[in-house]
Amino acid sequence: MTARDLGLPTRVTAPGLPERVTIWEVGARDGLQNEDTVVPVEVKLEFLDRLADAGLTTLEATSFVHPKWVPQLADAEDLLAGLKQRDGVRYPVLVPNERGLDRALAAGVRHIAIFASATETFANRNLNRTLESQMDMFEPVVSRAVSEGLDVRGYLSMCFGDPWEGDVDPEKVVQTGQKLLDLGCSQLSLGDTIGVATAGQVAALLNAFPNVDKLAVHFHDTYGQALTNTLEALRHGVTTVDSSAGGLGGCPYAESATGNLATEDLVWLLDGLGIETGVDLDKLADTSAWMATKLGRPSPSRVVRALRG
Amino acid sequence: MTARDLGLPTRVTAPGLPERVTIWEVGARDGLQNEDTVVPVEVKLEFLDRLADAGLTTLEATSFVHPKWVPQLADAEDLLAGLKQRDGVRYPVLVPNERGLDRALAAGVRHIAIFASATETFANRNLNRTLESQMDMFEPVVSRAVSEGLDVRGYLSMCFGDPWEGDVDPEKVVQTGQKLLDLGCSQLSLGDTIGVATAGQVAALLNAFPNVDKLAVHFHDTYGQALTNTLEALRHGVTTVDSSAGGLGGCPYAESATGNLATEDLVWLLDGLGIETGVDLDKLADTSAWMATKLGRPSPSRVVRALRG
Repeated sequence: MTARDLGLPTRVTAPGLPERVTIWEVGARDGLQNEDTVVPVEVKLEFLDRLADAGLTTLEATSFVHPKWVPQLADAEDLLAGLKQRDGVRYPVLVPNERGLDRALAAGVRHIAIFASATETFANRNLNRTLESQMDMFEPVVSRAVSEGLDVRGYLSMCFGDPWEGDVDPEKVVQTGQKLLDLGCSQLSLGDTIGVATAGQVAALLNAFPNVDKLAVHFHDTYGQALTNTLEALRHGVTTVDSSAGGLGGCPYAESATGNLATEDLVWLLDGLGIETGVDLDKLADTSAWMATKLGRPSPSRVVRALRG
Repeated sequence: MTARDLGLPTRVTAPGLPERVTIWEVGARDGLQNEDTVVPVEVKLEFLDRLADAGLTTLEATSFVHPKWVPQLADAEDLLAGLKQRDGVRYPVLVPNERGLDRALAAGVRHIAIFASATETFANRNLNRTLESQMDMFEPVVSRAVSEGLDVRGYLSMCFGDPWEGDVDPEKVVQTGQKLLDLGCSQLSLGDTIGVATAGQVAALLNAFPNVDKLAVHFHDTYGQALTNTLEALRHGVTTVDSSAGGLGGCPYAESATGNLATEDLVWLLDGLGIETGVDLDKLADTSAWMATKLGRPSPSRVVRALRG
């Protein structure tokens, strides 16, 4: 039996790439919060369990954003209460503010993520803050979380383009990102929220950052560039990549598919390049095919469609 | 107005890439031959005219494969008779054998392409020949075409994986490809017919070829790798890339989407990298959105969906 029969790519390594990549699986949070269907908590719990079973070790589980804004994740407390946490698996939770941190601490969360903007307009629209003053909101969250022994990741959105401002200056992204690291974030995830970036932009931004080892990348596939951008980031030393099982969060039939990079498409690339992820592609594709039935629509992941379509 | 308003990516160049790429547009041939819907010849003619208007300069127009095998292109003679050829635009036609060459010459075709296999099994299944003996079929076609002053491209399929044989040895691909060049083909298009390749394989195969300037690449997006593989090929000196307007040939709802790389997704990458193609992305997306209405289904191109969805 060849690799092909197993639904795996031929392994051929390439120079200048990491030996191992950590996949930061965002399907249960960033994925499901952008799906029209509200998934029952039991399904979410089974989803997280299956993702862990497929070998993913970082599972962003839910969000403590107010349910009014994200009704899809209104069951955060129930989910965390029902979660059978596995050894060796992290379950970070998005926390927008101090109230969210209170809820996270009460639920026993050990890893949180905060969500900042790289542009003035999006800071204003998404957070009702200026680019500068958003830090006043994050400072008490991060400092208290760190003092409680929590690990904090900082998301930075609109790093490569903004629908209102257009081009985004890499130097300003570095400045804002550095502030999040200075506050105490252990990792900074650079988001292409509207999916417009191409590989040259990725290289330019990563070259402008002094500490690539603290960076993760979060690409959306809106213009089909997510995987190409990811490979470029790996070439620049990034070893943590955000993706969403089955491409959750980007409906293939929606007018504007703003979807996350599908974890399966990422794993196909990494497997092919001989880069270790610990992920069992077969189990993962099964999981996403199962979740697609719960959402009542096919997965936008090309690998899931090819293997399980 | 910023680039964003125009639906164009921010331009940031990257080292080690060509200044200009020739897009070999296969939508009217490889695209339409793999669509369930048979498109009327008038629509095909308008399609080709609009593609030329969008700045594409190589338009593979149709095929002289027997209509029994490809009913979608049974109107090849009518199409060529009705085609208003533009200065500066090539209209190559696929020619499987001597009978096809007779038809091409009678229709006044100046550019042809032949279609060979890199693997024994596919040579047998697709051409009813051995890997070796397929050359006996091509030799008289190419030699007569060249003596008539025609330009001949050689397609080589299954270069990165074969559904029956699994892995494909790059050295054997080079041997077979070199035979096509020796016969008189001016260019060799390396096809990932089942879309399984990843970037390391692309690098390995291109490194094994002695004359990269004669190569083009033809990637399918079955596993989401087409654009990443294309960028890898550009890094290895390839400057001709095959793609299909709107991703024609890969239905987004089909069980197994074996689709071509979408020209728009390719142009987004190349525009973003400051690589000239001569293509007007706006006009091209309009054309693909229009063709999608003729096929009665949305385009699988992510750029077309984002810009015109």
